[in-house]
Parts: sequence; structure tokens; C-alpha cells
Amino acid sequence: MKYCSECGKPVVFRIPEGDNMPRYVCEHCETIHYQNPKIVTGCIPVWEDKVLLCKRAIEPRYGLWTLPAGFMENNETMEQAAMRECYEEATARVELEGLFALFSLPHVDQVYAIYKARLLDLDFAPGTESLAVDLYREKDIPWQQLAFRTITHTLEFYFSDRQAGRFNLHTRDLYADARPADN
Amino acid sequence: MKYCSECGKPVVFRIPEGDNMPRYVCEHCETIHYQNPKIVTGCIPVWEDKVLLCKRAIEPRYGLWTLPAGFMENNETMEQAAMRECYEEATARVELEGLFALFSLPHVDQVYAIYKARLLDLDFAPGTESLAVDLYREKDIPWQQLAFRTITHTLEFYFSDRQAGRFNLHTRDLYADARPADN
Repeated sequence: MKYCSECGKPVVFRIPEGDNMPRYVCEHCETIHYQNPKIVTGCIPVWEDKVLLCKRAIEPRYGLWTLPAGFMENNETMEQAAMRECYEEATARVELEGLFALFSLPHVDQVYAIYKARLLDLDFAPGTESLAVDLYREKDIPWQQLAFRTITHTLEFYFSDRQAGRFNLHTRDLYADARPADN
Repeated sequence: MKYCSECGKPVVFRIPEGDNMPRYVCEHCETIHYQNPKIVTGCIPVWEDKVLLCKRAIEPRYGLWTLPAGFMENNETMEQAAMRECYEEATARVELEGLFALFSLPHVDQVYAIYKARLLDLDFAPGTESLAVDLYREKDIPWQQLAFRTITHTLEFYFSDRQAGRFNLHTRDLYADARPADN
């Protein structure tokens, strides 16, 4: 951030009075520009013993596989966001069955919230952000071609819980590793 | 938003190519300014049969009672944010015991995430954003002077679960009601 989005004058980066963290501050109109983490919502669409995965048609991680997920928008609930992303990426309709995995990724200022979901029918197809959409059994999951660590963990949690016969909420903090902008 | 935070030129509000929602777009430097919901994290600090409440020293809802909670910052995890807010508002140290309540508030573009917590000692005091901090038994909770609906619901869920002898994750969507900017 270089300019104030309210008045167009240059901003400075300093600790505002009464605060304890540096912020982008406009000394002309006195607006303080707070910056906060974003929420990524998604789901695990399940059909019989298979889960739906999407092959990414966009960067980052073009060509790798993911669960349908994306940034939550203003004016929607977390569940609406998760269902919207599933429809946008896979034209798939789901019924959500509760929050299943919750990740904090402080190095990229993101929180991932993934729901367990029941795929309602087989009328799915790649959305504009997907190259392909397909159902995978556990033994066929392309573990080495998954796009994000959050997706790998979520699938591991899912198959482990399915084996155990009970599904719990899983929470995990993920920190930076060797790959840039990793999540 | 009126000006581009990257180049300082006026922005327009239109649907970018390949998108389906209007965004603030800079036609000079081509930056698209996405706006997304913010996360409020907090906790229920429990000591024996009492919970810790804070009397707000700031607007909105000056003078009303709340659980310690506030906006999650960049570069922290959800649990770190919940513990930081508890320390800032009540100089209280807690051990978190899992996510307890999760609210979507689409009319104010917020998600509330409240953890169950164990207060570690009685060395608490009002932080700069609190007029008073005190422990309340269920029968003494100032139900008519609570600051936000999220707090009322969370306390209802807590005492109900405590009565039942088991604590579950509670999720709820809250929509606009008669009060301005209600959460």
C-alpha cells in the first residue's frame, strides 16, 4: 500500500497512537488502513467411497489437484462461500455436513475452513478455474500432485476418520516451508 | 474506496474481465482491489463455575459486557489471536481448549471464532479497551447488558453444554436485525 484509498495522498507506515503495531496511516485524512487475514472456504465433496478433486487451470499451482475452495467474499456466510466455490470450480452441488478442518497459515495471512460435504449428483464438470474434475478413491488420490499442504492434510484427516468410523474437527497451524507462498 | 492504494489514481467499481462480481478496479495500473470478510477471535475464560467478562471502554457498545475478542491480525494463528485479545482486554492468561463457537455475520462481513479456555490464574485487570473485568456465575451474567449477539449466543451455548456435560462446536449464521452494525 502506497496511497490512501480514501483521499489519494501517500501513506506512511507507523504505529498509530494507542495502538501497538505499525499500520498504513494517512496523515492527510487520518484514515488508518488495517490489513487482516483472509478466509479460504472449501469442501470435501463425497460420493460413495470417492472424493471430488479439481485440476487447477490457474496459478498458483497450475495443473495440480485440489479440493474446491477459494476466498470467502463479503456478504456471504462461510457455508455459502464453500458451496459457491464448489459450484464455480466443479459446477457441483453439495450438502454440507459440518466444519471438518481449520488451518491457520500465518506466513500467508490466511485461514482455511474446509467442510465435509455430500455430492448431490454426478452432474459436475470443470468450471473456468479447472482443467478437469474427477472422483477419486483413496488408493487413486494423486498425493504427489496435490496443490496445497492444506489439501493433503484434509484428505489425510478424511480417510483416517473414515477408517475410524467417526469424523472430528481437525485444527492445524501451518508455517512457511521451502516453497514460496505455500499453503 | 475512492483511490488506488498502489498508484493513487481514482478507482472505478465494475466487474473485472473473467470475474462475476463488481470490484474496485484501477484502470491506470490495473490493480483489482478485493475486499473480504474479517475474522474476530475470542475466548470464554473459565475459572471454576465462573466466566470472565469485560466491560467495554470503546465504541461500539461502550459500557456493555463482552467476552475478550477482537480482530485477528496478519502474521498470527487463530489461537494466538484469541490469546492476544484476552491479554490485551483483561491482562489474562488462558489455555485454549478448542474452538467452541463459529458465527458468520454476512451483513457486517465478519466471522467470529470463539474458543473455550481455562483461565490460568486470577491475576487479571482491565486492559486499555476495558472499563472493568470480572468473573460471573451463570446466574449473575448481565444478559441485558451484553455487547453483541455473538456473545449472548456463545454464553448460552456454553452454559447449556456445561449442564449437558459435553462441549460441542456450535455454528450459527446471524443476519442484520434492528440495531445498526449488529454483531
